Amino acid sequence: MPEPVAALSIDLNSDLAEGFGAYTMGDDEAILKIVSSANVACGLHAGDPEIMARVFGLAKQLGVKAGAHPGLPDLWGFGRRVIPFSTGEIERLVAYQIGAAQALSVYSGNPITYVKVHGALSHMAHADVQIATAIGRAMKAVDARLVCLTFPNGPMRQVAQDLGLRVAAEIFADRGYTEEGALVPRNQPGALLHDPKVAAARALRMVRGGGVETLSGRMLPMKVESICVHSDTPGAVELAAEVRRTLEAAGVSIRAFA
Amino acid sequence: MPEPVAALSIDLNSDLAEGFGAYTMGDDEAILKIVSSANVACGLHAGDPEIMARVFGLAKQLGVKAGAHPGLPDLWGFGRRVIPFSTGEIERLVAYQIGAAQALSVYSGNPITYVKVHGALSHMAHADVQIATAIGRAMKAVDARLVCLTFPNGPMRQVAQDLGLRVAAEIFADRGYTEEGALVPRNQPGALLHDPKVAAARALRMVRGGGVETLSGRMLPMKVESICVHSDTPGAVELAAEVRRTLEAAGVSIRAFA
Amino acid sequence: MPEPVAALSIDLNSDLAEGFGAYTMGDDEAILKIVSSANVACGLHAGDPEIMARVFGLAKQLGVKAGAHPGLPDLWGFGRRVIPFSTGEIERLVAYQIGAAQALSVYSGNPITYVKVHGALSHMAHADVQIATAIGRAMKAVDARLVCLTFPNGPMRQVAQDLGLRVAAEIFADRGYTEEGALVPRNQPGALLHDPKVAAARALRMVRGGGVETLSGRMLPMKVESICVHSDTPGAVELAAEVRRTLEAAGVSIRAFA
Amino acid sequence: MPEPVAALSIDLNSDLAEGFGAYTMGDDEAILKIVSSANVACGLHAGDPEIMARVFGLAKQLGVKAGAHPGLPDLWGFGRRVIPFSTGEIERLVAYQIGAAQALSVYSGNPITYVKVHGALSHMAHADVQIATAIGRAMKAVDARLVCLTFPNGPMRQVAQDLGLRVAAEIFADRGYTEEGALVPRNQPGALLHDPKVAAARALRMVRGGGVETLSGRMLPMKVESICVHSDTPGAVELAAEVRRTLEAAGVSIRAFA
Repeated sequence: MPEPVAALSIDLNSDLAEGFGAYTMGDDEAILKIVSSANVACGLHAGDPEIMARVFGLAKQLGVKAGAHPGLPDLWGFGRRVIPFSTGEIERLVAYQIGAAQALSVYSGNPITYVKVHGALSHMAHADVQIATAIGRAMKAVDARLVCLTFPNGPMRQVAQDLGLRVAAEIFADRGYTEEGALVPRNQPGALLHDPKVAAARALRMVRGGGVETLSGRMLPMKVESICVHSDTPGAVELAAEVRRTLEAAGVSIRAFA
Repeated sequence: MPEPVAALSIDLNSDLAEGFGAYTMGDDEAILKIVSSANVACGLHAGDPEIMARVFGLAKQLGVKAGAHPGLPDLWGFGRRVIPFSTGEIERLVAYQIGAAQALSVYSGNPITYVKVHGALSHMAHADVQIATAIGRAMKAVDARLVCLTFPNGPMRQVAQDLGLRVAAEIFADRGYTEEGALVPRNQPGALLHDPKVAAARALRMVRGGGVETLSGRMLPMKVESICVHSDTPGAVELAAEVRRTLEAAGVSIRAFA
Repeated sequence: MPEPVAALSIDLNSDLAEGFGAYTMGDDEAILKIVSSANVACGLHAGDPEIMARVFGLAKQLGVKAGAHPGLPDLWGFGRRVIPFSTGEIERLVAYQIGAAQALSVYSGNPITYVKVHGALSHMAHADVQIATAIGRAMKAVDARLVCLTFPNGPMRQVAQDLGLRVAAEIFADRGYTEEGALVPRNQPGALLHDPKVAAARALRMVRGGGVETLSGRMLPMKVESICVHSDTPGAVELAAEVRRTLEAAGVSIRAFA
Repeated sequence: MPEPVAALSIDLNSDLAEGFGAYTMGDDEAILKIVSSANVACGLHAGDPEIMARVFGLAKQLGVKAGAHPGLPDLWGFGRRVIPFSTGEIERLVAYQIGAAQALSVYSGNPITYVKVHGALSHMAHADVQIATAIGRAMKAVDARLVCLTFPNGPMRQVAQDLGLRVAAEIFADRGYTEEGALVPRNQPGALLHDPKVAAARALRMVRGGGVETLSGRMLPMKVESICVHSDTPGAVELAAEVRRTLEAAGVSIRAFA
């Protein structure tokens, strides 16, 4: 019987610490028991020092790696609104947040090893190589060892590599992919996979196939080092748990990329 | 003629980068040409990534050392209102801000070497050893090499030393001192020295005398390693400049403590 | 058969619209189906224009009266931290929020008829007659017809009456009362009633008895015009629903006070 | 000697109360002594309840009419960044701010009579009739008597009129106009008039000519009911004072439009 499948491993990552003060967002603790990498919000689009330290600490207890998850300074809009910052402003915004996350992660005994940008900032980075460059420059300036967790294609990955940063490629457990390998826009059919079993089975196929599966079922070969599971959508914990169970049952081990 | 005076040196520090977005506070550039240490606000009581990076960078050009100047998260109150945070919250608040300042100072090529807390947070630290301890613990956790710039007396200095942190003692160029060596409360006569020449002459006496001069003219021997000059009061730049001129004319060199 | 009980009516009020942007707090819609008065957060301790307008509009559809629920400007602390504002600042803070709520309530076709202050601001008003006066003055200046919904005892009620404002007295469905008629502090036994049936039965006794029932079971006669049910505690909807069911089953009608 | 000139009057308006907490923006008091209408910031792009009440009160003392000056909720960006809000969100944002301004203006004895939107919100209104409609709808819903102070041309004026709102047309003392009557973009030559005498003479010509004078010196006939003078640019007070002096010296009286 062939063995290669048994040797497969993959990271599971999720955006966490996105509460603020009295407000909660998703069930951080439940998700931390499932994932191998925790993207920790940095206080500008969501998060505050309390929840950041709590998630860093809990992640450490559970053997989960930590990364910074910087976003636009827009708590009201949860970092999902495209706001026209200059590339210089993006650089400083990202550096600020990485630093805050570094300090609280060191404080909590679980230093961050990677960065994944949030929401509108991520969209902007994938639409504009200048924005992607600003993010990469901020990472490099603050700590050149930080890994850039981003899409397997697109300018952010390319720019980060050009800057000499390590990169890791993520795909989404619950998002549909177009025939070109892009995310299906949220207002179109197939944008979201709601059924945990369907999503988990597809995730396994993508890990085994080494690529992204499009709406039509085609596998586009791409680097796949991490699967993002959401923490704040309805049924998020169930879907994430099903993805993990399915992968492990198939012999894929869950292991942080960084 | 005796020489010891010629060997004297002292640091001048000031709170800077306390603008926010379109708002300015004081004349950072003018003050940076006078002081040897720049306490850079960290975005919670004042400051934003843009002004922080600008001040770190300008300080570097001018040979001025940089420190973090964390405060309470209260932009509306400019960090001057006592807000009842727990000691744990203080620890995380301070760690967060030190981290943000570290990142932007490294980004700007002028890494912070010390921390001085702002406004109400400073008052709270001097009134409550638990708060002082929280601040010291945050510093130690994030970077144990950071120097704690604080009063020559009181709990903050003691606690920082007990935690193994280096300390530096600051006095104020424009604040009156009681016979016990405390700051004269702002609502009492003698709280503020408005005349640059008077303040500068007293500063020189305090540097030479190695202590704090009280309202009655008595010199209380104390460690004096830095003089704080304000940046945002009317006539701030003139007073700071006069202090520097007077000290240098008397052979006291201006030199950063850290 | 005696009739007086059948003629009883009482208001049920709850603090609503306390989400912010992407954040939710409690289940506003479920609570609006139970209460007769909706205290709408005004954007400083919680709430934003979107959720305010939504709750005002939904309240209108459901025949629920609306009031302003102003708090301290402290989103991070959810308005629960005592922050030292001057009485003048309190006046303007409260006036600002009442105005914002008026506009959005008129916009939504459900003009506010009363004001109930939130969290730390409420505590401050009950501890300091000057703060209570500031709140009353703000209400009177902005719209003298607004009713002040507050405790049946204490300075806020007295001050509001002295200023010529209408007042309405509220008790809490899920909070214990001391033998003096004060709320049992949250860190003491008996502070909270968790069992919906126990709370509902006590609420009925208080409505019938016309007073506040203390921990020992004594009834302190007091004006009782409204019962506050929480919206954001675990089991909040169940407890509120049980209170309403129990009151209605006993012939007490639920009717807004204003 | 012909008389018509002596009968001319014009309003002068300026954006005020744009400080925040410890931050100042321009010299509100000096400008209030010059203008006849004060556009008061409402706390989202700038302003807080303290400065709003202070400016409303001072305006009253000086016989200056007051209006609301709502902006986007972006203190960091001073309301100058275009942020993609939906038209519904714009409606509620504007209603919220008008209400807050109403309350504090009534509190200060100087009820607002008009609305002029700020910065990016103004740009968005002039670029998108849907946004202009949202602003007009908010005004009408909150208080249909409010006058819309806006450009003499463009969608905001048209929409406001179509909604049955009164409108007033403003031109800018220190901005150049293209041959089509639009503002010269800030990055092009002629965008700004820096010389008070030049600006004041042109203002007089525009009032007398009943129109907008283009860069080439042509007069485009337009309704002109108010001249906006800035409060926060270098030399703002001098320019505003010169405009007033020049107008009055020529027999044009300064009189509020609303």
